[in-house]
Amino acid sequence: MEVGFLGLGIMGKAMSINLIRSGFKLTVWNRTLSKCDELVELGASIGETPAAVVKKCNYTIAMLSDPSVALSVVFDKDGVLEQICHGKGYIDMSTVGADTSSKISEAITSKGGSFLEAPVSGSKKPAEDGQLVILAAGEKALYDEAIPAFDIMGKKSFFLGQVGNGAKMKLVVNMIMGSMMNAFSEGLVLADRSGLNPHTLLDVLDLGGIANPMFRLKGPTMIQNNYSPAFPLKHQQKDMRLALALGDENAVSMPVAAAANEAFKKARSLGLGDLDFSAVYETVKTLEHSS
Amino acid sequence: MEVGFLGLGIMGKAMSINLIRSGFKLTVWNRTLSKCDELVELGASIGETPAAVVKKCNYTIAMLSDPSVALSVVFDKDGVLEQICHGKGYIDMSTVGADTSSKISEAITSKGGSFLEAPVSGSKKPAEDGQLVILAAGEKALYDEAIPAFDIMGKKSFFLGQVGNGAKMKLVVNMIMGSMMNAFSEGLVLADRSGLNPHTLLDVLDLGGIANPMFRLKGPTMIQNNYSPAFPLKHQQKDMRLALALGDENAVSMPVAAAANEAFKKARSLGLGDLDFSAVYETVKTLEHSS
Amino acid sequence: MEVGFLGLGIMGKAMSINLIRSGFKLTVWNRTLSKCDELVELGASIGETPAAVVKKCNYTIAMLSDPSVALSVVFDKDGVLEQICHGKGYIDMSTVGADTSSKISEAITSKGGSFLEAPVSGSKKPAEDGQLVILAAGEKALYDEAIPAFDIMGKKSFFLGQVGNGAKMKLVVNMIMGSMMNAFSEGLVLADRSGLNPHTLLDVLDLGGIANPMFRLKGPTMIQNNYSPAFPLKHQQKDMRLALALGDENAVSMPVAAAANEAFKKARSLGLGDLDFSAVYETVKTLEHSS
Amino acid sequence: MEVGFLGLGIMGKAMSINLIRSGFKLTVWNRTLSKCDELVELGASIGETPAAVVKKCNYTIAMLSDPSVALSVVFDKDGVLEQICHGKGYIDMSTVGADTSSKISEAITSKGGSFLEAPVSGSKKPAEDGQLVILAAGEKALYDEAIPAFDIMGKKSFFLGQVGNGAKMKLVVNMIMGSMMNAFSEGLVLADRSGLNPHTLLDVLDLGGIANPMFRLKGPTMIQNNYSPAFPLKHQQKDMRLALALGDENAVSMPVAAAANEAFKKARSLGLGDLDFSAVYETVKTLEHSS
Repeated sequence: MEVGFLGLGIMGKAMSINLIRSGFKLTVWNRTLSKCDELVELGASIGETPAAVVKKCNYTIAMLSDPSVALSVVFDKDGVLEQICHGKGYIDMSTVGADTSSKISEAITSKGGSFLEAPVSGSKKPAEDGQLVILAAGEKALYDEAIPAFDIMGKKSFFLGQVGNGAKMKLVVNMIMGSMMNAFSEGLVLADRSGLNPHTLLDVLDLGGIANPMFRLKGPTMIQNNYSPAFPLKHQQKDMRLALALGDENAVSMPVAAAANEAFKKARSLGLGDLDFSAVYETVKTLEHSS
Repeated sequence: MEVGFLGLGIMGKAMSINLIRSGFKLTVWNRTLSKCDELVELGASIGETPAAVVKKCNYTIAMLSDPSVALSVVFDKDGVLEQICHGKGYIDMSTVGADTSSKISEAITSKGGSFLEAPVSGSKKPAEDGQLVILAAGEKALYDEAIPAFDIMGKKSFFLGQVGNGAKMKLVVNMIMGSMMNAFSEGLVLADRSGLNPHTLLDVLDLGGIANPMFRLKGPTMIQNNYSPAFPLKHQQKDMRLALALGDENAVSMPVAAAANEAFKKARSLGLGDLDFSAVYETVKTLEHSS
Repeated sequence: MEVGFLGLGIMGKAMSINLIRSGFKLTVWNRTLSKCDELVELGASIGETPAAVVKKCNYTIAMLSDPSVALSVVFDKDGVLEQICHGKGYIDMSTVGADTSSKISEAITSKGGSFLEAPVSGSKKPAEDGQLVILAAGEKALYDEAIPAFDIMGKKSFFLGQVGNGAKMKLVVNMIMGSMMNAFSEGLVLADRSGLNPHTLLDVLDLGGIANPMFRLKGPTMIQNNYSPAFPLKHQQKDMRLALALGDENAVSMPVAAAANEAFKKARSLGLGDLDFSAVYETVKTLEHSS
Repeated sequence: MEVGFLGLGIMGKAMSINLIRSGFKLTVWNRTLSKCDELVELGASIGETPAAVVKKCNYTIAMLSDPSVALSVVFDKDGVLEQICHGKGYIDMSTVGADTSSKISEAITSKGGSFLEAPVSGSKKPAEDGQLVILAAGEKALYDEAIPAFDIMGKKSFFLGQVGNGAKMKLVVNMIMGSMMNAFSEGLVLADRSGLNPHTLLDVLDLGGIANPMFRLKGPTMIQNNYSPAFPLKHQQKDMRLALALGDENAVSMPVAAAANEAFKKARSLGLGDLDFSAVYETVKTLEHSS
């Protein structure tokens, strides 16, 4: 079976290499075509345009950098829409909002094609190791068809129902993560000011019931005031905002997330928006004006 | 070397059995002496009173049920104070506040004895398995002397400096835990009201960067509205209050912990104080008056 | 000078009567034309359509019930746009969002007309008494031209700069008001549960530095659990949300407003959205499930 | 009837002058006796010690600078306790906590005397003008006896029931005030960053339903970053803390007050504790590190 793959950035390249190494017959496309070379060496074919890829393949996976690219790959000249039709599937694994996802879904299905949004949790390393977590939503039949590919790219995939649910699930997870990062920051500062060694706090936390990879990974760098951005603070704050808006729609009061969101906003106002989201630690630490 | 052990409740019994099985020569005491039988069968001696145990041993460990018992074992007739002296150590592993700990510390050291507070993280199962985490503070020499015993009872022990630091470390950890429980509750409700399956949220969380034993353990019971108390909500709220008070002393602003504390107070006002602390979930769920 | 007036609801009628009694030469229009009778008796002319009113007058004031009506009066057949032109002004005093206001502003100015948004603070009684507060923004020359009319309708008018600033000023005021209502509710409940008489608290508050009309007006009805809607809670919560969004755009962290907003959302989830915004008091009061 | 007056500081002097001008027969005492001169010129007698004053008078009013002075005037040699007895009353109008008040109350009543705590709201100017608000609690009969004096010193007095209720009422009022100050600060910053003139916001606020003396008084100085201390921020934060503790005792969840309290703590951590409580405005304003 022919599978298409659009977008060979850091994530897409790792994912498509895993597919081809596992025996998938891939046709790939990338805006800068030279990025396809490594895939071609491994046995992939090249499609000249998104439309050409879709024409040739049963279903096509996209892993694109942002919503505007995700839209142009579908709607522009030589885009996905020109060839999508009954019997063909399109799976967008990019991280885009519910709005973008809905727009693409409507366009694909109005042409008779089937659509799946499938954003992932996990970055470069999990992508290379085939350890992504895949949050799929949309056409169940297409999900079933893509399971063999998902099993290669991820350690686990979920089918979450209607289009939009993948994006919502990411928001919920990121909201919990953002509140936890604030709780963690407050704890680190409280320990430090109370005469306890923050490194010891990290050790104690890591031995108990709330031990988790994020504390283990971020704690040591936070103590060193190192916030090189894995997940930029302004994106974390945007996700908190969107999760609170989702709560507003559904009349869910979330006072802890709201307090965490205001701390992230404070961090933005301090000019920390482009640093890692763990830089919210700075808003808790802030001491005397004179220091 | 002779080691004393006062208090053979659920925790103390498990801990002392581990010590004796590893070759420690133990003299034990318990208010209800019959509880000593099992230890005697394993080779322990009995002390008739706390004073008698202290007299016989190099250092004595106590694991008592609450602060009032911890105080009476030291200060009452036939108590620890009557025999403690230069060259002897007393290690209180009970969970008591910084105040109680300081009172005991002063009394012991004024008699020439050395003192260590050493509250533990972990309950029955880790106690039986020798997997406790021990947060010791006080006399460093006594800590060093007790390391062989700590290595048997716990998977890890920490020396945290002056008396009081053990209690403070527990407060910081429990504060982070309480905020996390609120973040988790908010996420579960948001998922549910947004049309996502809370069980799927648990699965997704458990595969990501914030996966932790507490979410794994409490999530399924919370979804079933099962709050049988492992750690009562009113105790969690007390720890939040004390942690916030510690922050107040040290001018640390902790808006997320404060919001979480108010949610726990709301739960208390709803009559949920004796349930598990995960019952704070109920304050987030609450729907229409009529339902 | 001929002045037009569109919309003779409760507010518009009171405002136009004041204008005509003070000697303004008015041409009025209302969707249900019979509502114009009282004005005609006082000397007003009738315009058959919004377009007809605009054609006849130097500037035209509108006081319409909601954004959709405000839009249709301008854009529909026989609407304002058909006759607005260079030298004519249009003043929308309805309460509409910044979006609606901008749309109308662009349409009017693209035809060469001048535009002013001028939402008011105050309801029926102040409208009748000519005691409104007028928050005008847009074309300064038109503001200057309308000052004589504003002086009749209001006790005070402000010119706030570019279109949108009137709506923003209302949001800021309502945000402060919403936080104050929460602070007040918390105080009333705290007094009651601490054994103090809430009525006495009202008396004490009214004699001090934070005495204000809202506490004086709402306090007694809140204590009686009477929340007949003067300003519906769901509208207050919408204004909190929009004010927080405005803060988000401008990187202003507002933790107290955020906490107040979550309380209003909790009230909505309890089914109180259509009651007066003072019903947020219920979320603070809530006691045991069993009660 | 002979009335005693202990303490002729700024407040006590103004209050006692009002009493004597209204015909009260006063016996006064002050630690520095020379401060009594002005009163003597107006016709007052001098008591050499607190005990001497109490001996001579039906009831004695005290207006002292802080809890430690309030205690020493009662308990020290030549103090109130030496002469208080059945038939004599003692009215402490100083601002002291519930603890201090209870201690004094118990001592007085155990000697057969009657006691009233009567803290006031209002500072120098209202004291001079006889416009204080008096929050009395304790022995009702003594309150009734003192009404003629209260009517001279204050514009209004309240009898609030048992000893401690005066202090609690002040806490509730100050808690509401502290939350309001935060809401106000957030509004001022939001206006400013959104392109609105903060002075105009003050004008608009002052014309509406939440107009109050505090906004009117503090607004202009806050905009000028002038925080000369009328009520020090650290005292406001202490009152927030105590009010939240009172809520904790009574299971009242107060999320807005809690958020406000954390902002005041943040202000303390920025070194603003000795400035006026309106300096919490600085925590909302804080912008980029680099600015």
